[in-house]
Amino acid sequence: VLVDVTAEDTTDLLLAALGHGFDLVLANKKPLAGSAASHARLLETARVGGRRVLYEATVGAGLPILDTYRKLVEAGDRVSRIAGCVSGTLGFVLSALQQGRAFSEAVREAVASGYAEPDPREDLSGRDAGRKGLILARPLGYLGPPPQAQDLVPRPLRRVPMARFMRALPSLDAAWKERMARAAAAGNVLRYVVTATPAWVRAGIVEVPASSPIGALSGTRNLISFTSRRYRDEPLVISGPGAGAEVTAAGILNDLQQLSAS
Amino acid sequence: VLVDVTAEDTTDLLLAALGHGFDLVLANKKPLAGSAASHARLLETARVGGRRVLYEATVGAGLPILDTYRKLVEAGDRVSRIAGCVSGTLGFVLSALQQGRAFSEAVREAVASGYAEPDPREDLSGRDAGRKGLILARPLGYLGPPPQAQDLVPRPLRRVPMARFMRALPSLDAAWKERMARAAAAGNVLRYVVTATPAWVRAGIVEVPASSPIGALSGTRNLISFTSRRYRDEPLVISGPGAGAEVTAAGILNDLQQLSAS
Repeated sequence: VLVDVTAEDTTDLLLAALGHGFDLVLANKKPLAGSAASHARLLETARVGGRRVLYEATVGAGLPILDTYRKLVEAGDRVSRIAGCVSGTLGFVLSALQQGRAFSEAVREAVASGYAEPDPREDLSGRDAGRKGLILARPLGYLGPPPQAQDLVPRPLRRVPMARFMRALPSLDAAWKERMARAAAAGNVLRYVVTATPAWVRAGIVEVPASSPIGALSGTRNLISFTSRRYRDEPLVISGPGAGAEVTAAGILNDLQQLSAS
Repeated sequence: VLVDVTAEDTTDLLLAALGHGFDLVLANKKPLAGSAASHARLLETARVGGRRVLYEATVGAGLPILDTYRKLVEAGDRVSRIAGCVSGTLGFVLSALQQGRAFSEAVREAVASGYAEPDPREDLSGRDAGRKGLILARPLGYLGPPPQAQDLVPRPLRRVPMARFMRALPSLDAAWKERMARAAAAGNVLRYVVTATPAWVRAGIVEVPASSPIGALSGTRNLISFTSRRYRDEPLVISGPGAGAEVTAAGILNDLQQLSAS
C-alpha cells in the first residue's frame, strides 16, 4: 500500500504505484480533485489492475464520511446531496471572528495549531474546501470540472510569497469585522458551506441563523449531511472535529485496516 | 447467516444457530440486552465457534453507530462515553408534546406509523432505550446488569392488556401537558437521554435547552455522541432518523454485506 500524506499533485507517482501493484490510501486531496480526465484515469488504472483507492481522511479527517456514503450505497440507497462545513480552518477562523477576534489573529492561530494546510491560502481561497466538495460529488456521478470556490483572499495577495501574505493579513481585519457585525445584527453568522450533487458543486460563504445546526458549529468542527432516497425529509448528519494530525492519522489507519481485511 | 428481526428473547435459538455454524445478524435487541451472564455466553459461544454477531440495526436503525464505534476502536481510540437520544418513539412523542399535541394522540400515531415497538410500552417504559444503552455500554467494558430505565408508564397500567392501556392513554394527557409547559416556560424541552460508560448506564427524561443539539431534535430523529480519547473536547456526533422499516432493513443489509465481504 502506498500512503500519500503530501499536499502535492502526485498523480503521476500514484499511477506508477498502481502499475506496480500498490493499493492507495490518500489523505492528499489533490490527485482526487484534478480534472475529470485525470480523475477518471486514476480510477480506471486502479480498476483495470484490480487495485483499491481509499481516501477517508481527505474529508472530515477521521470522521466516517466516505465510509457512511459507501454503506448507504451498498444498502441500495441513492444519495442526491452531500453538504456542510468541511473546512476545519475556515470553521475555526469564522467562529473566532464571531467571538470578536481579528481575522489576522485567527488565521495565524489556525496555522500555528496545524489546522491549516501548509499555506493557509489553500484554505482561505476555498480551494481546499472546493476539492473536498469535488471529492464528495464525484462518487455521486458529478463529471464536471473542479468548482469555482469563493476565494476569501483578495486578488493582490493571491500570488505573493507566503511570508508577505502573512504580514499583510491585518489589512483585512476591518472588512471582516464589519461583515461579521452585519451578520450578527440579523442574528446570523457566516459559514463556508460546500454542497455536492450529481449535477453541480458549490463552495462559498453563506449567512445562516446562529441557532441552526451549521450556525451552532464552533472551532474546527465539521458537519456533513447526506440527503438520499431514504434520508430525504431528514438527512443523516455526521459532525465532529474535522482537522488535526491525530484524527487524520486515524482515518488513514481505518483505510489501511479495510484494505488488510479484504 | 441467521437474521433475527423478532422482538423476543431468542437467546436459546441463537445459541443453537451458532452451534450449527450460523453467523448472526440482529435487529432484535433482547438477546443482547439480557443479563451479563447470558450476554457473555452468547459472545463466548460465537468466539469459540469462530462465528460473528453483528447488530448495527439495534441502535439508530440504519445510522452507522456500531460501525463508527468499531472504526474508532480499530484505529486505536478509546471510547469513554456514548450518549444521546436513541428512541425514535420517545423522540417522536416528546417532540409532538412540544408542538402542543396530546400525549395519547402522539403515542397512537407512533404506533400507527410503525415507529413504536409492537407494544408501545416497550418504548414508553424506557426498556427499549435502556436496552440500547446497555448494547452501547457493553462494548465499552460495562459488566453490570441492565439499567433501571425511567418508566413513563404509570404503575397501574404496566401489566394491563395492551388494548386497555391504549384506551387509558388520555388519562395521562393533562399531566404531560403541564410538565411540558413548565419546561417550556424555562426555554427548555424534555428529551429521553441514554448515557453509556464503562462503569454505568442511565436512561431517563432530561430537561435541556430547546436550542441545544439534543433539544433541537424533532420527530423520530436520533442523535448519538461519542466521547473518546481523540474526540474528547468535541465529541463525534451522528444524527438522523433512527426508526422505520426501510432504514432498519438497510442496517441489516449492511451487516450482511460486511459478513459476506470478510
